[in-house]
Amino acid sequence: MLSTINSPQDLKKLNISQLTELAEEIRAFLIENLSVTGGHLAPNLGVVELTLALHYIFDSPKDKLIWDVGHQAYVHKMLTGRMERFDTLRQYKGLCGYPKRSESEHDVWETGHSSTSLSAAMGMAIARDLKGEKHKVIAIIGDGALTGGMALEAMNHMGHEGRDVTVILNDNEMSIAPNVGAMHNHLGKLRTNHNYRRAKEEIEQLLKKIPAVGGKMAKLVERLKDGLKYVVVSGILFEELGFTYLGPVDGHNLPALMEALRQASHTKGPVLVHVITKKGKGYAPAELDSYAFHGVGMYKIESGEVLKSEGPPSYTSIFARTIEKLAEKDSRIVAITAAMPNGTGLDHFAQKYPERFFDVGIAEQHATTMAAGIATQGLKPVFAVYSTFLQRGYDQLVHDVCRQNLNVTFAIDRAGLVGADGETHQGVFDIAYMRSLPNMTIMMPKDENELQHMLYTALMYDGGPIAVRYPRGSGEGVPLDGEFKLLPIGKAEILRPGVHVAILAFGNMVPIAQKAADMLMAEGMNPMVVNARFAKPLDEELLFMLARDGYTIVTLEEGAVHGGFGSAVLECYAQAGYHHITVELMGIPDYYVEHGSVKEQRAEVGLTSEKVAHKVRSLWPARRQRA
Amino acid sequence: MLSTINSPQDLKKLNISQLTELAEEIRAFLIENLSVTGGHLAPNLGVVELTLALHYIFDSPKDKLIWDVGHQAYVHKMLTGRMERFDTLRQYKGLCGYPKRSESEHDVWETGHSSTSLSAAMGMAIARDLKGEKHKVIAIIGDGALTGGMALEAMNHMGHEGRDVTVILNDNEMSIAPNVGAMHNHLGKLRTNHNYRRAKEEIEQLLKKIPAVGGKMAKLVERLKDGLKYVVVSGILFEELGFTYLGPVDGHNLPALMEALRQASHTKGPVLVHVITKKGKGYAPAELDSYAFHGVGMYKIESGEVLKSEGPPSYTSIFARTIEKLAEKDSRIVAITAAMPNGTGLDHFAQKYPERFFDVGIAEQHATTMAAGIATQGLKPVFAVYSTFLQRGYDQLVHDVCRQNLNVTFAIDRAGLVGADGETHQGVFDIAYMRSLPNMTIMMPKDENELQHMLYTALMYDGGPIAVRYPRGSGEGVPLDGEFKLLPIGKAEILRPGVHVAILAFGNMVPIAQKAADMLMAEGMNPMVVNARFAKPLDEELLFMLARDGYTIVTLEEGAVHGGFGSAVLECYAQAGYHHITVELMGIPDYYVEHGSVKEQRAEVGLTSEKVAHKVRSLWPARRQRA
Repeated sequence: MLSTINSPQDLKKLNISQLTELAEEIRAFLIENLSVTGGHLAPNLGVVELTLALHYIFDSPKDKLIWDVGHQAYVHKMLTGRMERFDTLRQYKGLCGYPKRSESEHDVWETGHSSTSLSAAMGMAIARDLKGEKHKVIAIIGDGALTGGMALEAMNHMGHEGRDVTVILNDNEMSIAPNVGAMHNHLGKLRTNHNYRRAKEEIEQLLKKIPAVGGKMAKLVERLKDGLKYVVVSGILFEELGFTYLGPVDGHNLPALMEALRQASHTKGPVLVHVITKKGKGYAPAELDSYAFHGVGMYKIESGEVLKSEGPPSYTSIFARTIEKLAEKDSRIVAITAAMPNGTGLDHFAQKYPERFFDVGIAEQHATTMAAGIATQGLKPVFAVYSTFLQRGYDQLVHDVCRQNLNVTFAIDRAGLVGADGETHQGVFDIAYMRSLPNMTIMMPKDENELQHMLYTALMYDGGPIAVRYPRGSGEGVPLDGEFKLLPIGKAEILRPGVHVAILAFGNMVPIAQKAADMLMAEGMNPMVVNARFAKPLDEELLFMLARDGYTIVTLEEGAVHGGFGSAVLECYAQAGYHHITVELMGIPDYYVEHGSVKEQRAEVGLTSEKVAHKVRSLWPARRQRA
Repeated sequence: MLSTINSPQDLKKLNISQLTELAEEIRAFLIENLSVTGGHLAPNLGVVELTLALHYIFDSPKDKLIWDVGHQAYVHKMLTGRMERFDTLRQYKGLCGYPKRSESEHDVWETGHSSTSLSAAMGMAIARDLKGEKHKVIAIIGDGALTGGMALEAMNHMGHEGRDVTVILNDNEMSIAPNVGAMHNHLGKLRTNHNYRRAKEEIEQLLKKIPAVGGKMAKLVERLKDGLKYVVVSGILFEELGFTYLGPVDGHNLPALMEALRQASHTKGPVLVHVITKKGKGYAPAELDSYAFHGVGMYKIESGEVLKSEGPPSYTSIFARTIEKLAEKDSRIVAITAAMPNGTGLDHFAQKYPERFFDVGIAEQHATTMAAGIATQGLKPVFAVYSTFLQRGYDQLVHDVCRQNLNVTFAIDRAGLVGADGETHQGVFDIAYMRSLPNMTIMMPKDENELQHMLYTALMYDGGPIAVRYPRGSGEGVPLDGEFKLLPIGKAEILRPGVHVAILAFGNMVPIAQKAADMLMAEGMNPMVVNARFAKPLDEELLFMLARDGYTIVTLEEGAVHGGFGSAVLECYAQAGYHHITVELMGIPDYYVEHGSVKEQRAEVGLTSEKVAHKVRSLWPARRQRA
C-alpha cells in the first residue's frame, strides 16, 4: 500500500483499517531503511499514527504543519513524496533529517533546535489573519521542548492573543533523556490521574445530591460550581494560559486521534491536544531503549544490536572521564546539562555525584545564568553543552557570566562541523560570538589528551569564564597522560619549527596542519606548525615574534571565518601596528553548511590537509617568485 | 530618621510606626534626589515598603536578596549605606543605577536585563545546600519579567527541585508598558477574584452540609475534596508548577508584608509571595503616569513636569515616523516589540495600525522567531528592539531567521554606547554577533535623514534579513528628505575626497570623522571620509580601490572592536590578498563600559574627533617620516 501514497491526498481515500495497515508498512519501512542510513528512529516510530491522522484531518500544504525540532518528520516526508529518497537520508546531498523548505511545499518551516514551533505557528497565524486567509496552523511539539523558555513565551502570547492555532503536545515523557521539570510533573498527573478524566460527570451527579439551599448558601453553591471547573478541566495549567485543552488521547489509536484533531479543528482560539505516544512504538528494541534508538547509527534489525563504529574514544567520553576525576578531588565542581545527560557524557557523573549534577531541561538560558549564580558562591560550575545550543544562552553569557566575570566553565561539545545533523546543528559560530565578549577565555585542544589538560586548566582557573570547545566524534587515538597538566593561559605551542610560513591551527585543525606539513616536507618545504590552543587571549608574544621574523601566517579553524580565530589574529596585528604581515584565513565560509559526513563537509569548505598544503605552497617564497 | 539608617541592622530596631515614617522619608528623598539626577523613580516608589519589609524580616547579606532587572534597587541601596552618594546616581564614576557587587556586599547579583533573578536564586540555593549553609535566597521579580522565557525555565526547574527559595512577585500590572500575556490575565484574576481568596473556609462549610454517603459515593466525595484544592488554592498556576503560593498581599501595608514574608521564611520548598504594588506610589504625578516616571530625566517636583532636553528629534522618533509612513503604503508591514512600545517609538504605530502591531511581552526569543514565521508567509515584519535585548534572540537569529534567509527587518535602537544605563545595556556587541551570520545585512545611518532611507531600503529588500542599527538620543538635526531613497546594498558613500588616509566611519561615527577631518584640514591635511553605511556586505570595490591607491585606512565604529566592522575590513583585505595595507581600528575596547553620559563614555574609550584626528596625524606620510 505504501507505494501508492504519493501525497496526502492519497491518504484520504483510505479507511481506518487500511490506514492501520499503512501504519505498519511505514514502521517496517523506517526500521528497514534506518538500519542502513541511521537516523532518528524512535521519535518517528512514535508519531506514525499521529502523522497519518494529521495528514488525514488537515489539508497540507494549505494547512501549515510545523514540526518542532523536526527530527520526527520522517513519516511526514514519506507521505509527501519523498519515500524514494530515504536511502539518502542525512547523507551528503541527500534527504535532510529535518524539515527543509527546498525539499517540499509541505515543509513550511525548518528546524533542528527545539521549542521554535509555537512562535512560528503564531507568526503564520498572524499572517493568515492579516491576509484574510482561512487555513489552519498546527504546531507539533514534544513535552521536552515545552520546557524551553521560548515555547513558554509563545504560549503566553498565544493565550493572550486568542487566535486559532492548534498545538499538538506529543507527550512521550522524554525529551531525549527522561524529562525534568515541574511542567513534566503536571503532565504526569494529567496522564495518570483518572480523577481528572472522569471527574466531570461524576461530580455533576454529586452536585445534584447537594440539598437545595437558599440565601447565602445559594451563592456559595454557585461559587462552588464555578470553582469546580478547575476540577473538571484536566489541563488546568494550559487552560489558565488561555488554551482549550483536549485530551489526553492515545497517540497510537487512529480513530481517537482523528476525533480529537477534528474537534480541535472546529474549536476557536488556541487549542492544545495532549497526545500520549510511545517512543520506538512497534519495534521492541527501540521501545526498550528509546534513548539508544533516539538518534541511532546502523543496527541489526533482528537483534536490535546497534553497530558501534570502531575507533578511539570520543572527545565526549574523555570529557566525561576527566570531569569525574576532577570532581573526585574538588568538591566545588558542579555539572550542568540542558536535557543532554547522555549526549554530553554526564550520565555517569550524574550517577556518581547526583547531588552535584543538574539537568535543567531544554533551558540553556536558565542553565547559563544558574551556573553564574552558583559561581557567585565560590563553587565551580561546568555547563556541558553543544556549541549550537549555547547560542540559546548568548545574552546570559554576555550579561550574567562575562560581565560579572564569574568562574563558569563551558564544556562546548560538537564544536565545528557536526556531520549528518547538518546546518541547524553546526557548531561554527561559538568562536565569533564568544570572542567579542570581555573577560572570556576560549580554548580548543589538538587531541583528547590535551582536552584533559584544558579541562583541568579551566577548573583551576580563577580569572573568570573559560570555554573548552571540542569536536564531535572520536579523538586522535593518542595516549592519555596519567597526570593533569596546567596549561599557561594564552600560550600557544610550537609543534614543529619551520621557516617562511607558520600554520596557526586551532584545536582539531592541528592534525590537519601536521599532515599538510608532512606532505610539504616531502616536497622540501618545512613550514612551522603551531597549536594555537587559545582563541582568546591570543599568544601575542609568539605572534609578534613571527611578524618580526618575517613569517607568512596561515590561520586554520573549524569555525566561521567571519569574526573567528583568524580574524582575531588580524586584529592583534593591526592593533599592535604590524601592518605588513601576510595573514591568510582558512575557516568555514559565509554560508550554512548542509548535512553529510564531517569529511565531506570539510572537503566542501576546504578544510583539508591538501588544501592547507596547497595554500602553503602558494605562499612559499620560491613559488611566489615563480608565480 | 533616615540619617540614622546606615545598615539593615538599624532598621530592625524600629517599630511599625517608625518604619512607616521612614517609608515616607525615603519617598521624599527619592522624589527630591531624582528630580535632579533622573533615574527610575516610579519603580522605586512602588517598592519602598517591600524593601523595608525584606530587610526587616531577612538578614542581608547573609540572606541573599536578588533584584530582577535591578532598576528598583534604589531603596535597597539607601538602606545599605549608600544614601550619601545618591547625588551621583547614574553619573560617570557615580552610584550605578543597578545592583553592583563592587558597591556593597548587599548587592549579591548584578542585573540590568530582566528575568535573570530566578536562575541566579536557583544557583545560589544549590550552592548553599552543597556547602551546608542555612541562609535564605530571595528573588524579587516583577510581573513583566515573568513573561521572559528564562524566568519560566527557572520556575519549571525550581518547582522540580523543590529547594528553599523565596520568590517575591512584585505585581504592579506593568513591565515598563502595561503588561501582556496570558500569565498577566492569570495574575489579574488572582488580584481581583475574591472567590479565590475567601473560598477555602466557605467551601469547607459547604462540604459539611453534604449528607453522609457510603459506597461509591464516599469515594466520589473524597475525589471531590481532592479536586477542591484547585478551588481553594489561589495561585493555581504556580501551585501546579510546584510552588507554595502566598497572597496576594498589599505591597504598601507593612504589617501584612512582614507577616507574609515571615510565613514565607518558614515554608519549605519554593514559595511565591504575590505582592501587589503601585508604581509611583506616594507621588501623584508618578502614580498618574507611571510610564513617564519609569525612567525619568529631571522634573519639577511640585508640578511633576518632566523637563525635556532640547534638541533635534531622536532617532527613535524618526524610526517611528518612518515606519508609520511606510506602513501606510505597504500593508505587508507588521511591527513587533518585546514590551517596549514606547521605548521603541511604536506606540503611535500601535494606535494607528492595531491589527499590525504586536507587543509580545519581554520575550525577544519569541518575537524573533514569530517575525520569521510571519516572513514565511510573504509579509514584512519589523522587530524594533534595543541592541542589548536582541542578544536574547541570538539563537533565533542564527537558526530561524538567517538560516532560512527570511525577510525580517531588525530596527536596532540604542546601538552603541547608551549612557546612564551603563554596562548592562551597552549596544556594542550587535555588529560582531550579527556579522558572522550568513545572509545577514547590517546597516547604520550617518544621521536621521539616512535612517529614513535605510528603513525604506530594508523594507524594499527581498534578499533576507536586514538590520538597521541606530543610536540612542537625538539626531544630528539635519533636514529630512520628503521622498524615501533606495540605497544600493553594500555600497559606501564617499563624503569627502582626500589623500593618504581614508577614515571609514560606520553610522553615528561619521559626524565625528567629519569633525576630525575639519580639524585636520586646518592643519593642511585632507583625509578621505567615507560613510560606510554597511558593515555587511562591505563595499569591496571601494576597499580594493583604496588599497590600490595606497590609502591608509582608519575604521571607526561605536561597537566592540573585537569582531566588529573594522575586523570585517581586515578580513576582506586578507581574503582578497591585499596584505600590505595599513588598517587601524577604532572602536570599543575589550571591557564593559560603565555608566556616565555618552560623551564621557566616548571620551573614555577614545571615540572622539580629537582622537581620530590624532590617529590620522600619526599616519600622515610627512609625520610618519619625521617620527
